[in-house]
Amino acid sequence: ANFALIGQQFTQAFYATLQTNREQLVNFYYDQAMLTYEGAQLMGKAAIMTKYRSLGFQHISTAITNADYQPVERGVLIAVNGQLRVDDATQPLPFTETFLLRSFGQSFAIVNHIFRLGVHNY
Amino acid sequence: ANFALIGQQFTQAFYATLQTNREQLVNFYYDQAMLTYEGAQLMGKAAIMTKYRSLGFQHISTAITNADYQPVERGVLIAVNGQLRVDDATQPLPFTETFLLRSFGQSFAIVNHIFRLGVHNY
Repeated sequence: ANFALIGQQFTQAFYATLQTNREQLVNFYYDQAMLTYEGAQLMGKAAIMTKYRSLGFQHISTAITNADYQPVERGVLIAVNGQLRVDDATQPLPFTETFLLRSFGQSFAIVNHIFRLGVHNY
Repeated sequence: ANFALIGQQFTQAFYATLQTNREQLVNFYYDQAMLTYEGAQLMGKAAIMTKYRSLGFQHISTAITNADYQPVERGVLIAVNGQLRVDDATQPLPFTETFLLRSFGQSFAIVNHIFRLGVHNY
């Protein structure tokens, strides 16, 4: 279905950009997008980009474990589970994130985004 | 904010019902709700309840690690990370799930739901 293709293309592009050119992530967000990052609530492109710039690592690599897509009214809901590794960390960290994309004419932008690092319980 | 209160009340009620009276979960869903359960796509209350009934456990207990809420147009987006334990399992399993609630008059119902068991990578 179309929503799955849109979701896959978005997910691939988002993580490629995160890994190679974090500043360009600004182009994925709606102007009044919301990001909840480890419980911190940010609204708007400027606040979101300030958050990305504040993250204490130079490089990040991500591997998607699974990604699910669902159609929503005028958009796509995406839930991702993956593993990330920053700088020269030897152990990957699990993470989960949720994106709600909305269509704006022919393109899609993130209106809602929630990120959490996973918890190791043992 | 109101969306956070709605999200908290929903989350508390949903997991309480899951643990005590799974059949009553039907009341949380919109008629044409979608559930993606470990990658399997289900649509509509009947298909969703058939899925719940097919799960091979009698009892489940859940503990929420974190839950994030965001307002969306006519609704609330919820992302949950937690641990679950079924029947007499000794080890809890991590899980992640996403709910998109939509308001219908004075009440809210799940229109989109994505569930994944977490992956232990080491």
